[in-house]
Amino acid sequence: MNALYLSNHTLTYRTDLPVPQPPPGEALIRVLLAGICATDLELVRGYYPFDGIPGHEFVGVVERAPDAPQWEGRRVVGEINAACGTCRQCREGRPTHCERRTVLGIKGRNGAFAEYLTLPVDNLLPVPDSLPDEKAVFTEPLAAALEIQRQAHIRPADRVLVVGAGRLGQLIAWTLALTGCDLRVVARHAGQRRLLAKRGIRSIGEEDVPHWEMDVVVEATGSPGGFALAKRAVHPRGVIVLKSTYAGDLTLNMSEIVVDEVTLLGSRCGPFAPALEHLRRGLIDPTDLIAARYPLEKGPEAFQKAAQPGVFKVLIVPRITYQVPRDT
Amino acid sequence: MNALYLSNHTLTYRTDLPVPQPPPGEALIRVLLAGICATDLELVRGYYPFDGIPGHEFVGVVERAPDAPQWEGRRVVGEINAACGTCRQCREGRPTHCERRTVLGIKGRNGAFAEYLTLPVDNLLPVPDSLPDEKAVFTEPLAAALEIQRQAHIRPADRVLVVGAGRLGQLIAWTLALTGCDLRVVARHAGQRRLLAKRGIRSIGEEDVPHWEMDVVVEATGSPGGFALAKRAVHPRGVIVLKSTYAGDLTLNMSEIVVDEVTLLGSRCGPFAPALEHLRRGLIDPTDLIAARYPLEKGPEAFQKAAQPGVFKVLIVPRITYQVPRDT
Repeated sequence: MNALYLSNHTLTYRTDLPVPQPPPGEALIRVLLAGICATDLELVRGYYPFDGIPGHEFVGVVERAPDAPQWEGRRVVGEINAACGTCRQCREGRPTHCERRTVLGIKGRNGAFAEYLTLPVDNLLPVPDSLPDEKAVFTEPLAAALEIQRQAHIRPADRVLVVGAGRLGQLIAWTLALTGCDLRVVARHAGQRRLLAKRGIRSIGEEDVPHWEMDVVVEATGSPGGFALAKRAVHPRGVIVLKSTYAGDLTLNMSEIVVDEVTLLGSRCGPFAPALEHLRRGLIDPTDLIAARYPLEKGPEAFQKAAQPGVFKVLIVPRITYQVPRDT
Repeated sequence: MNALYLSNHTLTYRTDLPVPQPPPGEALIRVLLAGICATDLELVRGYYPFDGIPGHEFVGVVERAPDAPQWEGRRVVGEINAACGTCRQCREGRPTHCERRTVLGIKGRNGAFAEYLTLPVDNLLPVPDSLPDEKAVFTEPLAAALEIQRQAHIRPADRVLVVGAGRLGQLIAWTLALTGCDLRVVARHAGQRRLLAKRGIRSIGEEDVPHWEMDVVVEATGSPGGFALAKRAVHPRGVIVLKSTYAGDLTLNMSEIVVDEVTLLGSRCGPFAPALEHLRRGLIDPTDLIAARYPLEKGPEAFQKAAQPGVFKVLIVPRITYQVPRDT
């Protein structure tokens, strides 16, 4: 089959890859649409060691599920962490932190920039018929945005600041706005401010970030400068949610964190079911985040586009060249 | 009056200082007993800019309180943060984070290593008659230990690790043990392990710190090595309480914090009333932490003693040379 393949930090389009065979408990899924996110760009930059097919935001159709044939033909999205089910983290209810996990297109498991992928059936969620592919493909990043509210109680009237208004920052701001909190977003680009204004969300410049006023600040830039802004804005005993991974180490004045009794909250993957529900009910409409669509064979070009400042979501559309034979 | 005086990172015993005059709303307090803590040692090392009389752990007697004469003659302890009452932090219920605060013996206000000090009457708490000075003097550090439980919900059976078993680490461990949590303490010195064992608390060596098992880890060493141990021990989505200030900056792999969704919780001063209550009811008996008592004039020697590894609490006992004349 055809796929984008990452090897030695170089992304190439390949046409010689085998269609994956689903192991016991897994399903073979035909990819309808896949999205490029910051983590994919970081994989190419070599921040994480991964060789294989990247891509973890997708919507697809189950082609074969030998152990669960009732899934065949269904349109699905999928939780990207494949857990062992037996380690301490799994047993204690933290499967996304499984000690032996593989992660779709990120760690030990080929991903979605391909004609086909495999995932455990337990990871799948059916997509409601009313939800078009170009919305469903946002389920994974929307879940990541909702993880913030799984971890921290955002109260109506809480003063909340989001630092960063890119592809993830927008979804974070839109979901936070649903809580009734007093929300502001630090946005650099006019396009970012436009998407926020359309939803009635106030954006501010870096120079307008207040000192010691915010109850909760979400840091979604992944830069030391973004962290410094967050620390400036949060009041003592407030919460900074760290929503971006950082390249390399970050040097912190830890005494400030102690003296001001700030809480730093690391935040990663989130719950898929409420994300799908938000999309189905139209509470979040992510379609105007779509900046471009590229066919699979133009994947490297799509990555270049996605890396440009101010560009939101770039989608990859596989053209299926290999038809999976149905079992009879 | 006599006092210890810090100037240019040098601590000297001085006999030429004026008895302070209580400003409006404040009381003049005769110091009965004062304790040396790690922050005092750090002030001398120059980690914070402070010139004046250090010392913030004390028990004393109110000598004069012009605006609140009912306090005169009462034995008291005192909240060390003197707040303005009008800034945003004060108005929002965070007076220990007052933007214009002075802090007894730490910031903008002379402290307790002296015959007399002044504090706002609002900061004072009466000491129950049944509580001897050598217990009451531990109110402030015990309050700092209890701050952990004001910030984080420690549940019975939670797996909790304290890294560091010094003067504050002991009080932290003793208070955590009251919750019924599954507690272990990383202790280096035999004397530290002895005090823990006496209270039925398990101590372990650094080599026995488990990987990804603890619900809550309290970092009470203030060293990068202590933080690394804490990060190793806490499970994903667990909490690391930062209970020590760090000299200089700490370089963190922030991506680990994000990917493992760890919470870092800065923790400083705590509530005095429950600390006094714990002492009064005998739930915490700190007297076997007392390593030595020094008269005020031997203060510099007392500081040297307190800086030795494995030494717990060193107390300073002022000898009153100046009698405050009573108003008639």
